[in-house]
Amino acid sequence: MTDAALTPLGAGFFAAARDRLRARAEAAGLDGLLLLRAPNLAYATGLFLSANERPMGVWLPVAGEPILMLPGLERENAEGTGLSDLRFYDEFPDELPAVLWMLAQIGRKSIAIDLLDASLLDAARDRLIRLDLTDHAMLERAIKQPEEIALTAEAAGFADLFLTRLQAAAGDIIAQGGTEADLMADAMTHARGALMTKHKAAFTGTPMGITASVHSGPRAALPHGAVLERTPQPGETVIAGIGASLGGYHAESGVTLIVGEISAEQRRIMQAMTACDDAAVAACANGKTCTAANEAALETLREAGLGAAIRHRIGHGMGLEGHEAPWLAPGDPTPIQPNMIFSNEPGVYRPGRDGYRTINTMIVTETGVDVPSRFQHNTPIDARVIAL
Amino acid sequence: MTDAALTPLGAGFFAAARDRLRARAEAAGLDGLLLLRAPNLAYATGLFLSANERPMGVWLPVAGEPILMLPGLERENAEGTGLSDLRFYDEFPDELPAVLWMLAQIGRKSIAIDLLDASLLDAARDRLIRLDLTDHAMLERAIKQPEEIALTAEAAGFADLFLTRLQAAAGDIIAQGGTEADLMADAMTHARGALMTKHKAAFTGTPMGITASVHSGPRAALPHGAVLERTPQPGETVIAGIGASLGGYHAESGVTLIVGEISAEQRRIMQAMTACDDAAVAACANGKTCTAANEAALETLREAGLGAAIRHRIGHGMGLEGHEAPWLAPGDPTPIQPNMIFSNEPGVYRPGRDGYRTINTMIVTETGVDVPSRFQHNTPIDARVIAL
Repeated sequence: MTDAALTPLGAGFFAAARDRLRARAEAAGLDGLLLLRAPNLAYATGLFLSANERPMGVWLPVAGEPILMLPGLERENAEGTGLSDLRFYDEFPDELPAVLWMLAQIGRKSIAIDLLDASLLDAARDRLIRLDLTDHAMLERAIKQPEEIALTAEAAGFADLFLTRLQAAAGDIIAQGGTEADLMADAMTHARGALMTKHKAAFTGTPMGITASVHSGPRAALPHGAVLERTPQPGETVIAGIGASLGGYHAESGVTLIVGEISAEQRRIMQAMTACDDAAVAACANGKTCTAANEAALETLREAGLGAAIRHRIGHGMGLEGHEAPWLAPGDPTPIQPNMIFSNEPGVYRPGRDGYRTINTMIVTETGVDVPSRFQHNTPIDARVIAL
Repeated sequence: MTDAALTPLGAGFFAAARDRLRARAEAAGLDGLLLLRAPNLAYATGLFLSANERPMGVWLPVAGEPILMLPGLERENAEGTGLSDLRFYDEFPDELPAVLWMLAQIGRKSIAIDLLDASLLDAARDRLIRLDLTDHAMLERAIKQPEEIALTAEAAGFADLFLTRLQAAAGDIIAQGGTEADLMADAMTHARGALMTKHKAAFTGTPMGITASVHSGPRAALPHGAVLERTPQPGETVIAGIGASLGGYHAESGVTLIVGEISAEQRRIMQAMTACDDAAVAACANGKTCTAANEAALETLREAGLGAAIRHRIGHGMGLEGHEAPWLAPGDPTPIQPNMIFSNEPGVYRPGRDGYRTINTMIVTETGVDVPSRFQHNTPIDARVIAL
């Protein structure tokens, strides 16, 4: 949170992104890319439109002008992009599915489409000579540009801010009988307020915000639980996982705090999770594949006797989507490269007993890994307590 | 908002839904339905899980037990459904795509899948004898059961409550220099508070909430604009469109208010929109097709000389999704039937000048159309003012 002059991505960024995408299409021997996924459309045009049933797309040809194709009710939004070839269909669902209408507008026969419903595949193939279903834009988005990294790093600071406030305020709130929901509301007001105070003026019109979950006690053993009206009890774990976004870019920070004193068993698990986090960083710094990084990180939990408590992968890509490719998970052979951004989320879940999770944001560099989420670094394990 | 004893849909509802869906599969000559769309999964199981990259599905065979297939981290959530055959895959993306893993678990060869990425179609066809891509569950969901209608009607009352508060408070807020965002925050706090006070205890764990947009002046001419820090000015229109949900079911209510006095031109447009709303109701009551209902409604705007100001269809289905099939729009030949629920949204948009939109919720009955959103009914055109 150092650069007060940070601004949203501008027309130059999007034009350069289109050039990179067109180069990818050319390298793949295609006439161009049809982008239908909302984050891909945002990446290529700056249009942050929420996805709904009405298809929205941009055609990026290797040669020639892009074509922005939207439902009629987005006409004024389209005019803000600076693109000159704007075409509109009437409404959803229409007689002709909008994606097939787009193919007719494009008029080229060798194209990639990033997202297509299977029910339209045969009709699309009938209209084309070559249909490539690779998400080329996601492959490009996986390698972040400096402006994207700056937004991510700034966002991470607000996720940290939530955690700092949570820890500072939790003891008093719990002493008054406050619940998980109360802890969350207090820290949310603080962190969101700070985000808006600093950036609202410059970033209005782009996605920005904070999302959070706070779980305690046995509920912390559910990776995807609901925040409850439950007062954390002495000796329990409190898991806080925070996402922050700025200018459309996501970062995460998260920690496990202990209410009162840390037991020897809790300290042992928290140390194992730190080793797991370290192993993920090392794997990312060493250019392993995504799957191998996941395996290396989770292996440290198994070595600590916590294999049965693993419930999810070590992490996922982040950028214009909170979760995006590549995946630090089984089945993703992508080699980790500089300027990729991942979450690093060691988790230990013991249903009926307790749960632990920490989250860092990792930015892979030429020489290692930068970690813009600083809460864990600034809060050694022995300090991860909610003092009562 | 009359039935304080309203409760979320229960195990009996979901079991009956599964029976209806299995009967549809049998009628289609299929071995069963694989449901992957989140609202379809909710309809058949009561699992309100937010959609993410990890596929989640339920197999509903014509004969035999359903199989619930989820990522491992949803294990505890799955156990709450009462279904007995629960199967889990490791993580996303995994070596084998989860949908193909599901097909192997199912082991049947003649199935319908409600949502499939085109990139998996060839592999799915290789594993099956017959693959039907019809969304049979959506066809069933289009005809609401009494319990669903009760939730929708109750939700509509809270959308109305937002509008009532907005109108009552707006004059004072605007006189103090308040903006669209201030108007929205005030009415949101009120309506959400009322919703939570009445229903939070019974409905915790199911989706409930209020969404709203408030636009004024030239911004009201954008169907999909952002709420701004803008103070509505005397003589301008203020468009408020409110969605409310309870137990996962959505309703809408919306109105156009005039700041100060209504001009003759504004009154003329508001009357044309009422005629448009009436025409949609009449078309729904008369069992027309969805496309014909849209056409009949929009024709009234054209007859009033407002054809150039039409920017969208007259309405959409509502239920477990805020927008769902069938669509009162071009290209949907579905005959309108009793127990379907639609929005009714006449809109007039004159870019650079002004905009108007009203919204009602329509519940088609055996004898006509019930309209549970009451704000427009209770507020004749001449009363749709924000008194300064």
